[in-house]
Amino acid sequence: MAKILNLPSQQPQSTTDDPTRILHEIFTPEMAQVEKLLAEHITSYVTMIPEIGEHIVRAGGKRLRPLLTLATARLVEYTGDQHIRLAAAVEFMHTATLLHDDVVDDSETRRGQKTARRIWGNAASVLVGDFMLGQAFRMMVIAGSLDALDVLSDAAAVIAEGEVMQLATQRDINTTEDAYLAVITAKTATLFSAATKISAVIANRPSTEIDALVSYGRNLGIAFQLIDDALDYSGTQKTLGKNIGDDFREGKITLPLVLAYRRGNNKERNFWRTAIAKSTDEKTFQTAIKFMGKHNVLNDTVLRARHYGDMARDALAIFPQNNLHNQLIRLIDFCIERAY
Amino acid sequence: MAKILNLPSQQPQSTTDDPTRILHEIFTPEMAQVEKLLAEHITSYVTMIPEIGEHIVRAGGKRLRPLLTLATARLVEYTGDQHIRLAAAVEFMHTATLLHDDVVDDSETRRGQKTARRIWGNAASVLVGDFMLGQAFRMMVIAGSLDALDVLSDAAAVIAEGEVMQLATQRDINTTEDAYLAVITAKTATLFSAATKISAVIANRPSTEIDALVSYGRNLGIAFQLIDDALDYSGTQKTLGKNIGDDFREGKITLPLVLAYRRGNNKERNFWRTAIAKSTDEKTFQTAIKFMGKHNVLNDTVLRARHYGDMARDALAIFPQNNLHNQLIRLIDFCIERAY
Repeated sequence: MAKILNLPSQQPQSTTDDPTRILHEIFTPEMAQVEKLLAEHITSYVTMIPEIGEHIVRAGGKRLRPLLTLATARLVEYTGDQHIRLAAAVEFMHTATLLHDDVVDDSETRRGQKTARRIWGNAASVLVGDFMLGQAFRMMVIAGSLDALDVLSDAAAVIAEGEVMQLATQRDINTTEDAYLAVITAKTATLFSAATKISAVIANRPSTEIDALVSYGRNLGIAFQLIDDALDYSGTQKTLGKNIGDDFREGKITLPLVLAYRRGNNKERNFWRTAIAKSTDEKTFQTAIKFMGKHNVLNDTVLRARHYGDMARDALAIFPQNNLHNQLIRLIDFCIERAY
Repeated sequence: MAKILNLPSQQPQSTTDDPTRILHEIFTPEMAQVEKLLAEHITSYVTMIPEIGEHIVRAGGKRLRPLLTLATARLVEYTGDQHIRLAAAVEFMHTATLLHDDVVDDSETRRGQKTARRIWGNAASVLVGDFMLGQAFRMMVIAGSLDALDVLSDAAAVIAEGEVMQLATQRDINTTEDAYLAVITAKTATLFSAATKISAVIANRPSTEIDALVSYGRNLGIAFQLIDDALDYSGTQKTLGKNIGDDFREGKITLPLVLAYRRGNNKERNFWRTAIAKSTDEKTFQTAIKFMGKHNVLNDTVLRARHYGDMARDALAIFPQNNLHNQLIRLIDFCIERAY
């Protein structure tokens, strides 16, 4: 298991406590409908589409985003059935992004498997990603809420904007923590907040509740990405599903690197400048890890994640304190405690 | 000027007759609004987005698809203003596709300019394409017609499906004319027919008129692509805006090649099999042109285009015979006569 922190107050959760598992149990019938929609919308007479679709959709993942839509819909006592299609659409938007990300990053593995681009090539990954985005919009249209479509089409543009921004900061050692936050808010947190916002929107809840769910989703998403970025310097391939050090090798500027560069002495800053300017070897990565340890940056990245996690928790406080509320809070801790 | 045919009955049109120019004149105020929307939706605080956006959106093109939406909207006497946003959305869907196509095809030039991927790289082209698709959906949502959204989200998925299908037939010399038709119908004609269909949809016209506009758009789109594919073996770089022979070098199976292979003798078929299996040199391309000339396949590709052009013309017959109707008919001839 990956270890970043060793604070005595933090205990790893046992798997029986896993709130994603509990949420999957609570929403078993709804998630079955979501899965059915996902399976239906990767079918095509063009055989390459279901092949790649199966690979990326079935390869797992916790279905965190659709689960968020289902859970928040019940939290606001939504009684219709639009949330099922919208949850499936959100997951398709996510998987379309993954296919394109792997092309953009030249990634070799994802969730412990070869990426689609390694098996079927970049061209197919780009086009099947486009297909899945098209199918996501089809599902939204069938759901029939223009307000939800508004949220999700906004999200589609903002996510792409965040990805372009990330590309623009690549190998730029002067990237600030604020610029990094803007990137992860756009590329990751936007889909989390869209997933939670649409529940309140289709349930016609007042703006205080819409805002609360946006805040919960956004801050949870930021915390989630911070931990992901910390794990890239400390996870095992098993917990990560990809290779440690990918971000470093790709020159992707994440918080651990931002902090290590800013806290480093002149010699260290020279090291970071040189290392981030080009592809690096294993020895350089080990030096990077050493300097990061010296300045405690992974620990502090997790503490930053806790800050956003706390904001997510407090945002949710206006809703009734029931088991569902409790699981959504525990989900925050679960996302952060992946680091332990 | 490129020459495929030399039939005595065919006369090249003078530029003053150009129906796209006449349609641009008729719809000057509406097109100005469309252009304004296009410009507004390529802005972003991420500087790479307006740079690439300008490059691909401004680099010209005749705005054929938005023009089709504007013209058919007036043809069915639509009186609202949704068609402006939808026309802009259609153009954005088109440009997003161009960005991704150039990545998929490794293209060097488009419309006589370096492709975005050559200037900014594949990663940026993929992501800015995604951004533009997101912006297209935003505009559709603001237009506010779920029925139009239905048409255009269907189109987005079908276009991607067609592109994947094209990828699957790449370097497959056994591809039939029917399979080729299925590819171009999905990847090209779908956006033409969506552009014309949405006009009748937002104007709440009866299904006979919706069907007629779908048929006009689809058949015009097929004719347009057939001519494009013929020009790839006979155009000049000036009329084409890209290099002659790109399809051949990429092993893209288009009708000229399908016909030449099927009509060839054993020696010729061996040539096609070998040539299409890998990247080829200029000498091989000249041999290909020679065999194509022997079997008159470019001529016959244009005749096939005329067949679909005739279907487009007849589909339009149910509408009042006025100047607009006339220009839409002349547009068919214009698309086909690019070959002369």
